[in-house]
Amino acid sequence: MIELHLIGIGTGNPDHLTLQAIKALNRADLILLPLKGADKADLAETRRAIIAEVVTNPAVCVAAFDMPRRDADSADYKAGVEAWHEAIAVAWQRQIEAHIGTSGRVALLVWGDPSLYDSTLRIAGRLARDRPVRIEVVPGITSIQALTAAHGIPLNAIGASVMVTTGRLITESGWPAAVDTLVVMLDGECAFRHLPAEDVAIWWGAYLGLPQAMTLAGPLADVGPRIIAARAQARADHGWIMDIYLLRRRPGAGSAT
Amino acid sequence: MIELHLIGIGTGNPDHLTLQAIKALNRADLILLPLKGADKADLAETRRAIIAEVVTNPAVCVAAFDMPRRDADSADYKAGVEAWHEAIAVAWQRQIEAHIGTSGRVALLVWGDPSLYDSTLRIAGRLARDRPVRIEVVPGITSIQALTAAHGIPLNAIGASVMVTTGRLITESGWPAAVDTLVVMLDGECAFRHLPAEDVAIWWGAYLGLPQAMTLAGPLADVGPRIIAARAQARADHGWIMDIYLLRRRPGAGSAT
Repeated sequence: MIELHLIGIGTGNPDHLTLQAIKALNRADLILLPLKGADKADLAETRRAIIAEVVTNPAVCVAAFDMPRRDADSADYKAGVEAWHEAIAVAWQRQIEAHIGTSGRVALLVWGDPSLYDSTLRIAGRLARDRPVRIEVVPGITSIQALTAAHGIPLNAIGASVMVTTGRLITESGWPAAVDTLVVMLDGECAFRHLPAEDVAIWWGAYLGLPQAMTLAGPLADVGPRIIAARAQARADHGWIMDIYLLRRRPGAGSAT
Repeated sequence: MIELHLIGIGTGNPDHLTLQAIKALNRADLILLPLKGADKADLAETRRAIIAEVVTNPAVCVAAFDMPRRDADSADYKAGVEAWHEAIAVAWQRQIEAHIGTSGRVALLVWGDPSLYDSTLRIAGRLARDRPVRIEVVPGITSIQALTAAHGIPLNAIGASVMVTTGRLITESGWPAAVDTLVVMLDGECAFRHLPAEDVAIWWGAYLGLPQAMTLAGPLADVGPRIIAARAQARADHGWIMDIYLLRRRPGAGSAT
């Protein structure tokens, strides 16, 4: 029986690791370390640094391997993603067979938390479909918590709802009714540009948890253009960017929509 | 200058603590330990156990004090909460003055994460209004992550939004449009009873992170009544309960609402 531990590691700061994560890493027979190509080399390096810092058990084997690439030219987006996930599950299985066979504890380091906009759980489900695999999740600090902590703000207004959504969804559908706080993730296009800025404040953060972390906050009308510029510059400087933002409007401001 | 560190400690499992939280606790001159009365004695004991387990610096002073009680009879709910927050800020300030004076590092342990349905940040803001205080937030594992980890499920459907909301809001307004996943917190009344159960699944957890943790999951129509019964029994057994649940409906199932 394979035990697959999906371990949330937070957003890059090794101090985001929980004691539970550190114990799970040290109890692993095998840590899978996928390499994702040069564009996000900072992230691969961060994972290596985390393993080097907290894994003290010499019996733990670390297997680095190249991640299969997604066929971005696939006409059918959904089928393309499914084929990619299948290829990743096969790559995991190859490493597991090569290093520990059919029994033992395997750990995967997951950016943030395995529950949030991450495919590791779904890939693990594919692996478990064809062979006995027990899946354990170790929660980790998400970029949402890193964002609110960096700005020292609450996520929710008192007693109110919060929606976690994507750049694509707010570009397509605008500000959803019934909620005055939005957390926007997976937004490569600064989708806040498409929202009415009146009575809206933004709290933005990029590379949260990493040494190059940046934050900006203020009224959307003033700060939005500064974020667009800072984001483009940072992306050019580092070759990649991971960012997130929170938008809050005055309660009732958009109640007509 | 007072530095006030609001430290997320996760949901009761000492292994939820991050290295950042442990470092912040050990660098504190003073840890404030509010006591909330006998009904949640398990929680106070858990905080004490966490401090005993991870605070190794003998110079750290721990000040336990009785929390002011909210006047539940106040006719004006909002004014009642504000008066209560003010009383808590005064109680903090008294402990700070008594133990370290006007300068030093003060730490507060916050259940879950300080950003999520918690008043500590707002009380800290009151303290900072009248004197120089710097506020630092250390993120912690929320009950949302503890819930998804316990069930081994993703929070979001692929590319979709999630709403975090309260029992009161779904009782008042039903299932919000534009979202098929709801996380419901602060629900003492099993508000899911008021939602149409067709095509809805529920993942419920109580006391997550504590030894008495319980989970139930399945179709809402079948599992909802079992949760209501289990919740009432557990509350009677322990004298208190903290629970949370995730509801997911088939995409489009409620699009007419």
